[in-house]
Amino acid sequence: MKTDIEIAQTNEAHQMWPITQVAQGLHIPLDDLELYGKYKAKIAARAITRLKNNRPGKLILITAMNPTPAGEGKSTVMIGLADALHHLQQNVMVAMREPSLGPVMGIKGGAAGGGYAQVVPMEDINLHFTGDLHALTCAINTLSALIDNHIQHGNQLNLDPRKITWQRALDVNDRALRNVVIGLGGPSSGVVRQEHFQITVASELMAVLCLATDQTDLKQRIGQILIGYTYEDQPIFVKDLQAQGALTLILKDALKPNLVQTLEHTPVLIHGGPFANIAHGCNSIIATNLALHLSDYTLTEAGFGADLGAEKFLDIVTPHLEQTPEAVVVVATVRALKYHGGQPLDQISQPNTSAIQSGFRNLQRHLINLQKYQVPVIVAINQFTSDTPAEIQLVQQLCQEMGINAYPVTVHDDGGVGALNLAQALIDLPNKADWQPLYAPEAAIEDKINRIATEIYGARRVVYSNTARKQLQNLQKRHWDQLPICIAKTQYSFSDDPHLLGAPDNFDLHVENISPNLGAGFLVVRTGNILTMPGLPTHPAALQMDIDAAGTIKGLF
Amino acid sequence: MKTDIEIAQTNEAHQMWPITQVAQGLHIPLDDLELYGKYKAKIAARAITRLKNNRPGKLILITAMNPTPAGEGKSTVMIGLADALHHLQQNVMVAMREPSLGPVMGIKGGAAGGGYAQVVPMEDINLHFTGDLHALTCAINTLSALIDNHIQHGNQLNLDPRKITWQRALDVNDRALRNVVIGLGGPSSGVVRQEHFQITVASELMAVLCLATDQTDLKQRIGQILIGYTYEDQPIFVKDLQAQGALTLILKDALKPNLVQTLEHTPVLIHGGPFANIAHGCNSIIATNLALHLSDYTLTEAGFGADLGAEKFLDIVTPHLEQTPEAVVVVATVRALKYHGGQPLDQISQPNTSAIQSGFRNLQRHLINLQKYQVPVIVAINQFTSDTPAEIQLVQQLCQEMGINAYPVTVHDDGGVGALNLAQALIDLPNKADWQPLYAPEAAIEDKINRIATEIYGARRVVYSNTARKQLQNLQKRHWDQLPICIAKTQYSFSDDPHLLGAPDNFDLHVENISPNLGAGFLVVRTGNILTMPGLPTHPAALQMDIDAAGTIKGLF
Repeated sequence: MKTDIEIAQTNEAHQMWPITQVAQGLHIPLDDLELYGKYKAKIAARAITRLKNNRPGKLILITAMNPTPAGEGKSTVMIGLADALHHLQQNVMVAMREPSLGPVMGIKGGAAGGGYAQVVPMEDINLHFTGDLHALTCAINTLSALIDNHIQHGNQLNLDPRKITWQRALDVNDRALRNVVIGLGGPSSGVVRQEHFQITVASELMAVLCLATDQTDLKQRIGQILIGYTYEDQPIFVKDLQAQGALTLILKDALKPNLVQTLEHTPVLIHGGPFANIAHGCNSIIATNLALHLSDYTLTEAGFGADLGAEKFLDIVTPHLEQTPEAVVVVATVRALKYHGGQPLDQISQPNTSAIQSGFRNLQRHLINLQKYQVPVIVAINQFTSDTPAEIQLVQQLCQEMGINAYPVTVHDDGGVGALNLAQALIDLPNKADWQPLYAPEAAIEDKINRIATEIYGARRVVYSNTARKQLQNLQKRHWDQLPICIAKTQYSFSDDPHLLGAPDNFDLHVENISPNLGAGFLVVRTGNILTMPGLPTHPAALQMDIDAAGTIKGLF
Repeated sequence: MKTDIEIAQTNEAHQMWPITQVAQGLHIPLDDLELYGKYKAKIAARAITRLKNNRPGKLILITAMNPTPAGEGKSTVMIGLADALHHLQQNVMVAMREPSLGPVMGIKGGAAGGGYAQVVPMEDINLHFTGDLHALTCAINTLSALIDNHIQHGNQLNLDPRKITWQRALDVNDRALRNVVIGLGGPSSGVVRQEHFQITVASELMAVLCLATDQTDLKQRIGQILIGYTYEDQPIFVKDLQAQGALTLILKDALKPNLVQTLEHTPVLIHGGPFANIAHGCNSIIATNLALHLSDYTLTEAGFGADLGAEKFLDIVTPHLEQTPEAVVVVATVRALKYHGGQPLDQISQPNTSAIQSGFRNLQRHLINLQKYQVPVIVAINQFTSDTPAEIQLVQQLCQEMGINAYPVTVHDDGGVGALNLAQALIDLPNKADWQPLYAPEAAIEDKINRIATEIYGARRVVYSNTARKQLQNLQKRHWDQLPICIAKTQYSFSDDPHLLGAPDNFDLHVENISPNLGAGFLVVRTGNILTMPGLPTHPAALQMDIDAAGTIKGLF
């Protein structure tokens, strides 16, 4: 079997089309494209404005059970499913997230699909792409420099250096920057204070970019970002610094969605990429709305498992979209079900129907949860060569017992033709969706957290740290409580303990910290030991990477 | 008078050509272009390889007297001069540096020329351009993360955390990051150590990118970069970490030069941008060599005054070029001469020939210095509306007394037609250039520093700090002494004291620190209080910047 980068670079069966040709198929005039090489393009704001008159197509959300080291392939299934719809003569687009370079350098694995269900050019998409994340990093750190510079030069706003909430960021997995002291070296080199670098995709600015509906909204949201408090505990916002104009200018191109294609030439918009464990996990509103206006079917994914990604998509993102979801596709694998059922990783390829029976509880809870949103649910079983027919049948049967259809797909090896049944099922789906959010944003903060914790995660109760308790009071006092909740939690478990697999019950959800993201318009609730700056593993993927003089890339995947 | 951004954005007389048309004029096939929007393109490596067979044209270096707050306009003159040569039917190109975003956000002023002698699209060039600096920042910090991660996971190379010489970087003016402590927060968050962020353009990796002749050379140079020492004082290089492949991959596109145009459609390559005060100050070898192969005249500039930029260009860069310089153009202004002659800034527009007489010593020393390299020298007087004819004539006369011709230019207001005389003088210049470097790289370190200090700067002697003395011994012991010298020094004075204007004598040059840049292949000698991370001013330019819904930009210049 070829590696992903080999398939993407040799690309034997699938010569990439010039992106101008892909755009032509969408009736986007050449003049509205800003090319980045031959195979990537940004789409001009005027095109987006003009296309708003088109009637939006159907929206399909792709999500998954809790990820395991055995591999699930949510993006791969989404891409293959889009290619399958394309095969069936449907007018389809994908809207998905941009990969973060930090994790690409850390752990093998990217966000452009895999095998014959990939988005290309994958090496560009997984490296700098069109520079959106770099522009965000630059804007985030420029704001930090402006804040510390304000304090250095007289501190007219009376900012308390101990209460600055805005954090610097890098798109690098760098644990050594989690806790730092800056401003050392004497009076000419700043004011000493503690700082915490985040990974760029965890910064509120990424969420702001992804939730903004246009440049005017972006600037307004940036102005609303809380950067800290005065010595008298008065909140200070970006607009108080007058920095929203410069930050919007820095993000002027990053706000434009990026057009690429699958190996089978299905058009894809890749734009914005917050993580789902430490942020809200969905691509930009602008990209999804644009795809809706350009196609009859828009497929979009929410990061990690449905407990994190889909919940945030359905409660935070959907209210901003021009279309509510028509269906949710939940990706599962036999291997992941066995892993959740207790099968050790080194025996994951061995048939074990009782482990599947047991591990199905993980998938089952996700399916039950998603039905609460009143959107039809379908399961995609992403098939591996080690799966036996009996195992696949068992998963189908278990789903069927819940009244849900499950379709095996082989898109990794076969591309779009590996998901034709699933695609046809989507096309044939009766129009029954009637999306309802889990909670009303106006509800009390503890009620909202409680509903997610108990109804989605299956927690017994929510336990707040003393810090979180104080923060709750602060949020209520300042009337910042009527906002949706964005929970930061491990992706590996329904609980905040990554080792609790399957469908744990009788656990407490530990809320450590609640912070207002007033630009993004949600409250970030950190649970367990969730880190907003990952580290590199013992053997980082970067150390296997190379490019030779002919441009052949090794080790990227 | 319109601002630069107004001229660049309204662009009334000069509609930008599609960059494909500019490339066509250079006979670069469309297939060798990687477009970044309509008006920027990277040039593929294969085109560069193929064009190496072309006979190189003539190389013209643009430099200047020591900069002052009164303004000199070196880039503006270079761009106007190129447009003038273009007017005179010459086949001409410019090779110049990329602006650094940090200073753009700090102090009003950029690096894309000014008035009607600008490179466009200036707003893109001065913001993210094609992402080269962001790719560098990313590679620099990825290397740092790999280093700290190596120590975290067992430290097989036995790196002493106190002796790590590789530093993180950001393209932000952020004084609070000059001296930081990283790795706090306990064993899972890294090893505690001191760190110093540099501005990206000061990092050795920028110099490496600019001095590399191709991707193979880049990778080899990256492998040679010293990252620190073991507990037993053994040097550790990037190749010991096996990180050169990943870093080269991260820089694969940044290594390709960027094609843009002047307002008058003269082709310009903008590529690489080390500062001249804290680094070597010249655009990439790849861009200059490519321009030489594409045109009859290549104009390139070296940063800041000739003491810093031109010296480094002539001693460090020229040996790597496929053509030695045919002439040096030194940019001066009446206002800067008056400032160096003691005229206060608030009276700089008032005629004062005696201040010019006195300030001429600054220009004079630069002219004498440049003649030591045995390359013909011409002076360009960048005219301001406040200059009187008598003042201009006086400067011309003072130059003439040295046997050097000086030509007033009005390119800021008039574009290329404002420098026709200067352009004709360049064309008519007899072929007398016989470039000789100031020193042999094989000479002893102190001899090399001494020659630059005494023969270029006019210092009485060089004084070494105790640290620098120890570093000298280390460099000799390790046989790292046979390399050219890259002096980090203030740009405002020949000395290491920014307040010593004119042509100071009888001063000591204080060498604080000498560090081996083994990837770049030179020794960085820091003098005085030179900082490798600038700060923002009291009123940063960023706070005046804005972009409206129609895309109109304010405050960028």
